[in-house]
Amino acid sequence: MDFSNLVDSYKNIINSKLKSIYPEGPDLIKLPIHHILSGGKRFRPILCMLTTDVCKGNSKDAIDIAVAIELLHTFTLIHDDIMDKDVMRHGKKTIHNKWDDSVAILSGDGMLAIALSELNKVQKHKSLIIDRFHSSLIEVCEGQALDLAFQNNNDVSIEEYIEMIDKKTGNIIGLSSEIGAIVADRDSSDQNQLKRYGQLLGRAFQIQDDLLEILSDSKKMGKSLKSDFLLNKKTFISIKARKIHSSYIDDVINIAENDYTKGMDLYKSFLNSNNIINETKNYIINILKQADDILDQINIDKEILYKYTNMILKRKF
Amino acid sequence: MDFSNLVDSYKNIINSKLKSIYPEGPDLIKLPIHHILSGGKRFRPILCMLTTDVCKGNSKDAIDIAVAIELLHTFTLIHDDIMDKDVMRHGKKTIHNKWDDSVAILSGDGMLAIALSELNKVQKHKSLIIDRFHSSLIEVCEGQALDLAFQNNNDVSIEEYIEMIDKKTGNIIGLSSEIGAIVADRDSSDQNQLKRYGQLLGRAFQIQDDLLEILSDSKKMGKSLKSDFLLNKKTFISIKARKIHSSYIDDVINIAENDYTKGMDLYKSFLNSNNIINETKNYIINILKQADDILDQINIDKEILYKYTNMILKRKF
Repeated sequence: MDFSNLVDSYKNIINSKLKSIYPEGPDLIKLPIHHILSGGKRFRPILCMLTTDVCKGNSKDAIDIAVAIELLHTFTLIHDDIMDKDVMRHGKKTIHNKWDDSVAILSGDGMLAIALSELNKVQKHKSLIIDRFHSSLIEVCEGQALDLAFQNNNDVSIEEYIEMIDKKTGNIIGLSSEIGAIVADRDSSDQNQLKRYGQLLGRAFQIQDDLLEILSDSKKMGKSLKSDFLLNKKTFISIKARKIHSSYIDDVINIAENDYTKGMDLYKSFLNSNNIINETKNYIINILKQADDILDQINIDKEILYKYTNMILKRKF
Repeated sequence: MDFSNLVDSYKNIINSKLKSIYPEGPDLIKLPIHHILSGGKRFRPILCMLTTDVCKGNSKDAIDIAVAIELLHTFTLIHDDIMDKDVMRHGKKTIHNKWDDSVAILSGDGMLAIALSELNKVQKHKSLIIDRFHSSLIEVCEGQALDLAFQNNNDVSIEEYIEMIDKKTGNIIGLSSEIGAIVADRDSSDQNQLKRYGQLLGRAFQIQDDLLEILSDSKKMGKSLKSDFLLNKKTFISIKARKIHSSYIDDVINIAENDYTKGMDLYKSFLNSNNIINETKNYIINILKQADDILDQINIDKEILYKYTNMILKRKF
């Protein structure tokens, strides 16, 4: 099976599993979680299954945990979207927008609860997988706490930003590849290397997400793009821009509050004229090179993961 | 050691453990969780340790899981208080009131994450305890979903109400006594009986809570009492009252929205003249009798748990 078919087949397995989860239960949990789960790239569970595969494990053994990882990820999206007041996600209304904040808080909690129930089903290496999953959750929360705190701090360094996205984004992606290795019975050295690979992939993924929010349009991205900029969220790009001229960034945010297109156009011009877009693209390429270098140190069939790395680099949404 | 000293000694152990959890981490999680954890009766973790004790286990083996249960319970309070717009809890400002909704959502998530991290430390019967804990979480969310849905439904029956509080309140209290039995190496029959004991205790506890909200004052209860009434929350008492004269209850809620004392006084008169307060008290006594009957069927040193049951019956806040 070629790479693209393999990825699609894993995506279909995950989608079909997600469709059948939580068939019964109170409407205020069931309807919102199926609404939000109907979209999504399934980037994390696919990585988990691919990693099991390249480690010569049986990818079927990774299905339950891959589903749990996607649910964990979606739980974070539901609650983050409330905090960021984002109105669109995966091309659909966010839960707090379609219902209200209470339903979104509750169905986010429910989503996490269902993720944890799925863990009860895991057969191989259950105790280790659950420990990793639990540890990952606290890191995600910490990443989100830093993200929130950074909104009111214009002195965030690139290092602090990287720490934040490693916890918030790199962490669950690292968990996905790490657990793939665990399911395939790899030793702790391989587990750690593959975790590191996933973390770097996640780091690149997040910085690219920030870049796409500038370069893409909201229809393509399937989510509202205004909020990060208006909330003064710290990104690789905004930190670089503030290092050059912080008060100007405050000015363009102020302009964007009244006229979003005008403020964003001024921001883009500033980024281009200061070479920040190119600098960011090169930074992403460099991270992904580090990720691939890690793969070279492990005895696995690397080709598929190289292709996955490359898919990240090429993604348009 | 007499009963009251034993309860106090367990409370001190739990309080000291809670003080030392999560010493490092982002302020937006660390400060709110320690703020909210500084109060609380520790009813659930004490029950867990007492159950281990009466089952002839070593209560020290239950400490980590008892702490995790208190954190799980507190996570539900933080998120419920946002949904119910409650401004006081344990005699202090709720997190969303002292900070804001985002911090409360996030620190609630963080609280649950820390609870789950604590589970990683459990030594005895770890896998079973984690399964029970995970299953319990989804039930709590479902109970909260029903509670929320019932606000817009004036045809809720007593049976539906009992199902809701069994999931929302009875569940974690049942988990506490069940895990006490697990830690003490009791067989699944004893585990189930003690779980059932805890569930009934929780059912009585919740109905008594609803009663205290009518009879007590907010200073004694340490929480704002207005919201449940104004939000048209379904309680044993309000369902009984609506069965007699539903539109009158709508009227007193409307009055209470402008003049809380006046509306509440009318409500209390209605409850007294229809004997609902006495009926509720008798209902609680009957549940607690069922709970004690269960204890009679198990080979344990029952006296301590009888006293714990009685403590519930006598509580004033």
